[in-house]
Amino acid sequence: MTIEPIAGGSITSVPGFRASGVACGLKKNGALDLALVLSDWPCVGAAMFTTNAFQAAPVLYDRQTVAANPESLRAVVINSGCANACTGEPGLEDTRATAALAARELGVAPNAVLVMSTGVIGARLPMDKIAQGVRQAAAELSATEVAGHAASRAIMTTDTVPKTLAVRVNTQGASWTIAGMAKGAGMIHPNMATMLCAVVTDASLTPVTARSALQEAVDASLNRVTVDGDTSTNDTILLLANGQAGGAPIDSVDSAAYRAFVQGLTHLTIALAKALARDGEGATKFVEITVQGARSERDAHIVGQAVARSLLVKTALYGQDANWGRIVCAVGYSGVSVDPQCVSVWLGELELFRRGAPYDVDEARAAAILARDEVGIRIDLGQGTEQATVWTCDLSHGYVDINAHYRT
Amino acid sequence: MTIEPIAGGSITSVPGFRASGVACGLKKNGALDLALVLSDWPCVGAAMFTTNAFQAAPVLYDRQTVAANPESLRAVVINSGCANACTGEPGLEDTRATAALAARELGVAPNAVLVMSTGVIGARLPMDKIAQGVRQAAAELSATEVAGHAASRAIMTTDTVPKTLAVRVNTQGASWTIAGMAKGAGMIHPNMATMLCAVVTDASLTPVTARSALQEAVDASLNRVTVDGDTSTNDTILLLANGQAGGAPIDSVDSAAYRAFVQGLTHLTIALAKALARDGEGATKFVEITVQGARSERDAHIVGQAVARSLLVKTALYGQDANWGRIVCAVGYSGVSVDPQCVSVWLGELELFRRGAPYDVDEARAAAILARDEVGIRIDLGQGTEQATVWTCDLSHGYVDINAHYRT
Repeated sequence: MTIEPIAGGSITSVPGFRASGVACGLKKNGALDLALVLSDWPCVGAAMFTTNAFQAAPVLYDRQTVAANPESLRAVVINSGCANACTGEPGLEDTRATAALAARELGVAPNAVLVMSTGVIGARLPMDKIAQGVRQAAAELSATEVAGHAASRAIMTTDTVPKTLAVRVNTQGASWTIAGMAKGAGMIHPNMATMLCAVVTDASLTPVTARSALQEAVDASLNRVTVDGDTSTNDTILLLANGQAGGAPIDSVDSAAYRAFVQGLTHLTIALAKALARDGEGATKFVEITVQGARSERDAHIVGQAVARSLLVKTALYGQDANWGRIVCAVGYSGVSVDPQCVSVWLGELELFRRGAPYDVDEARAAAILARDEVGIRIDLGQGTEQATVWTCDLSHGYVDINAHYRT
Repeated sequence: MTIEPIAGGSITSVPGFRASGVACGLKKNGALDLALVLSDWPCVGAAMFTTNAFQAAPVLYDRQTVAANPESLRAVVINSGCANACTGEPGLEDTRATAALAARELGVAPNAVLVMSTGVIGARLPMDKIAQGVRQAAAELSATEVAGHAASRAIMTTDTVPKTLAVRVNTQGASWTIAGMAKGAGMIHPNMATMLCAVVTDASLTPVTARSALQEAVDASLNRVTVDGDTSTNDTILLLANGQAGGAPIDSVDSAAYRAFVQGLTHLTIALAKALARDGEGATKFVEITVQGARSERDAHIVGQAVARSLLVKTALYGQDANWGRIVCAVGYSGVSVDPQCVSVWLGELELFRRGAPYDVDEARAAAILARDEVGIRIDLGQGTEQATVWTCDLSHGYVDINAHYRT
């Protein structure tokens, strides 16, 4: 099989999907703030949601809707600027009204429409603006590349760049397109869940294979990202499959077609996960942390997350300081049992710490590595053969700037 | 019983303890960097150490020494500027040599001397400077107030103020002095352990009651502080009791005298814990988070720590933004099972969120509360009667400044 990126690809690269992105006044600066995605055919859908106990109204609504109607979903409305979280029953009513409004405009059943929201927690959706936005977005739906990219811009909050891409998966028996868009730059620490992410495909899936494929892909991608350790109230990833690629449906998780689809989907979601870390709030560096030599992949993941979450590691990376002691310190408090005498650490290809003892750091080489936009950290625990990679970013003055005055 | 602070108190407020603080060149700026505390009589000692898997050489040494010789400890040498962590067997040898050197200068047994170190991880102790410092510190030992305060300054790293105090505990049957000094401003997230802290008393304890009292006091104080979520390789708290107050020894954890001593000790360690949070790296605000209405004290503590660790809560506090959604979000991902409909949140006395629904925030009152140097957050989980308080600080540009270039 092959996985090829589609140049300039987006949601609308998948046959049978149209999209739009409009500005309806949710963002004070007049930027795009409402996206609509429509499938011309009914879709099999699967979704994963935040594990936060405070689940935003659209999370509660989508969870119920996907469970009740996993085989004939048609559209998703996504607004930025207001998370509609911690808004109680009135907030849930606003979400239902949003879906109903879109259903009427699109001529589909209300329970065929999903809703995602992102932005400030605790504020109600301004429904007059939402109504106007949904009408305009429905009118502007298009299968063009421009429309797909507008949708990906409309879901941004503190993101500095839109995150969207599409891939073509070719196997011997079939060929599918998978496309996705994601947003998220802060409050990013998915925990068996993720940030806002919509993925569409023309593959033919069943509810069971869609759910399974999504879980596998998310575990290997969006669940490996952290920006600031805060798990949001609104994290949602949605997969919509309209089956327009034709061919036999992927109806078994044991089939070769399923494995190929999971590979393609994981390729896409890893690219989106990396894009989220790269655009972390205030980030000046993208950081890939690989933990190898672990007893289990889970151990490797836990150690990687501890290092990725460490404020001291993140600020040292921002300061371009090869302060490996902070990396080792985070390994030590991760909760995974490690033997200090077996642990080694590399910055890029430069070894800093070998089996419990420091190397004299070649500060010139370290400085050259740390001056780059992308930094790799490798940690060998020396106790097994499993590994995991996590992605994060540094912690800069910019993060503090952005978050000291987010509401105001 | 009564607990009275001693004005200007420090380690030397306790009868039979002398101290000194000298500059031996470990700090580039010539500031005090080596402290020595000596008891004129043998002490019963107890200690608690970091749970980090990478334990610094002085942690390994002290653990062994306190276990082997808990009833005739005499002195502790504390250096700042170099943590002597991740330095392998040579680092351990340096710690042993430091203790031996001090023992010779003081005329006591080598296993009567403990060592603590704090500073950069991974660098070896410059033993020539340590030797010179230990000799000078031994020569300058004094029971004066000035000497006690010099010792507390010599253990500072990024601390902006020394943290030391002494209290007088009066009970019907006895009267003791308890004094302590602590350091720590970053890499502060004790986990069944603490930062560097030395506590001395003239109470008469046994190894068992000393250890038990220390554990109780630390659980209620230093284990309730977080600055940045990073648990250090060097965290150590040491209690030395020389018995000079006279009276019957406190030899049972069931005695009234033991309970009174624990109360006094906890009073002292809470004050030191608050001082650490208040002086967190870059902190502009001291934050006290009380979680009530919990099923257990442990649940309350877990929720409090999640809020205290949240970068988004901490940056909002820095920005004086009453962004209660971030507080609620952190409650939701803390791992404690909560019912959103039962949770309420207050900022100072201002209610922000009542049983799952937002209040319209009185922004003027919120701004006035957030303009203060000390901010209280109260969270009621509405599911029980237990509570816990944790202490932290905000996250400012200053934290990033300090930690981007710590080594350099």
